Amino acid sequence: MTRYALTVSYDGSQFYGWQKQSATIPTVQTALENALAAIAHHPINITAAGRTDTGVHATAQVVHFDSEANRPISAWVRGVNAHLPDGVAVLHAQAVAPHFHARFDAFARRYRYLLQTAPVRSPLLYGRAGWTHYDLDMAKIQAAAQILLGEHDFSSFRAAECQAKSPIKTMYAVQMSQLGDLIKLDFHANAFLHHMIRNIVGALVYVGCGRLSVEAFGELLAMRSRLHAPPTFMPDGLYFLGADYPEEFGIIQTRQPEWL
Amino acid sequence: MTRYALTVSYDGSQFYGWQKQSATIPTVQTALENALAAIAHHPINITAAGRTDTGVHATAQVVHFDSEANRPISAWVRGVNAHLPDGVAVLHAQAVAPHFHARFDAFARRYRYLLQTAPVRSPLLYGRAGWTHYDLDMAKIQAAAQILLGEHDFSSFRAAECQAKSPIKTMYAVQMSQLGDLIKLDFHANAFLHHMIRNIVGALVYVGCGRLSVEAFGELLAMRSRLHAPPTFMPDGLYFLGADYPEEFGIIQTRQPEWL
Repeated sequence: MTRYALTVSYDGSQFYGWQKQSATIPTVQTALENALAAIAHHPINITAAGRTDTGVHATAQVVHFDSEANRPISAWVRGVNAHLPDGVAVLHAQAVAPHFHARFDAFARRYRYLLQTAPVRSPLLYGRAGWTHYDLDMAKIQAAAQILLGEHDFSSFRAAECQAKSPIKTMYAVQMSQLGDLIKLDFHANAFLHHMIRNIVGALVYVGCGRLSVEAFGELLAMRSRLHAPPTFMPDGLYFLGADYPEEFGIIQTRQPEWL
Repeated sequence: MTRYALTVSYDGSQFYGWQKQSATIPTVQTALENALAAIAHHPINITAAGRTDTGVHATAQVVHFDSEANRPISAWVRGVNAHLPDGVAVLHAQAVAPHFHARFDAFARRYRYLLQTAPVRSPLLYGRAGWTHYDLDMAKIQAAAQILLGEHDFSSFRAAECQAKSPIKTMYAVQMSQLGDLIKLDFHANAFLHHMIRNIVGALVYVGCGRLSVEAFGELLAMRSRLHAPPTFMPDGLYFLGADYPEEFGIIQTRQPEWL
């Protein structure tokens, strides 16, 4: 029995989220487990670093699974990819320590949100980026984003159905950049609550267009309640960029695509 | 009666090409004519600068049409967009001289081909970029591309079904850039034959991976025949970037997306 870790990328618009549901509903987990089983010749259960929602993409999702099948590493990449639909691909595979756990050993996660600000939404970004027709004040968004840094109770940005044990998370970094009418918001935290980034982006857009002051954004965080929070932003622009693991596991960090 | 010019962007993977076919086949022309008719309250016929194939995208297709309907310019943008599917949008509208012709007055066209070179094709680029697993020698591709500059008989890169009157076209520029594993090839010519860019890209990939020498690429062009030409490359990475018109028409050039 060997434990393997895979780095997986997918187009979230092609799936009903990560998590396995009934056999007829296309999810990333179902597609991957079926493709892995076709190579292993036995059923496979996989565990992911982050279980993404419908419409949310991944450049480097990390998963683990166990197999008794003796296959070359290339079989877990090219062999599995031959059994996968176009919307998902294995980028990298490696054997790992038998106690490695893709979810519990991840001490931090990184997400990116792509947001187009333009009078007309680009058809080429549909499903790939969120969109607002408002002109956004980036300085105000930057100021509000800084308030998120550090340890906070993020209940104001937590979905009602969130199953996390604690709403207290630590935000290590929020980085912003802009490429023409496309804004990139990168979030790095130890963990994220359900819908946390989409809720934060919804509030940051309010700040950027002047519907919420930077001070009110800070008060919103302090309220620890969604009662007065702006609505959840669309999933289209959200990308899971990867998870951080202790060095001892030797998990290879695949290169982030420069074109995203 | 007023003649209007529109700048239109679309995701070619959502349509069976530009050109109207039977009413049940989704094409860009059909979608646009229906949406324009819904605003004008009379049937509309549109003419495009370049009639793109199935799977080929556009950032700035230019079209013209005539209407007797007295509508504010915003109706031809936001009003029409409200009637369009997600895969196509009007970016800009303007009234033009009654003799302006989107196709015949265009004295040059620009296309971009996006090509991913990677062991595994990114699911996030599926339908958005061509792909090869070969490592490509960019210096050789650059050298071959230079041979295309100027006036040539491009029959070696012409589809059998091409209806152009002459295979002689003038290539003004071929520009290359690279962003990580994504290569951008920009072509600027007075006009293009059917499948010309996809056939050129197919041959350039052969040059880049060593299956065709730069000299043999030049000989291929000189042969004026597809008999020994490499196969047509996939449409996924091809984008119509726009057309050039005489200044007298005052056609507004919309900004190219920086993120493409």
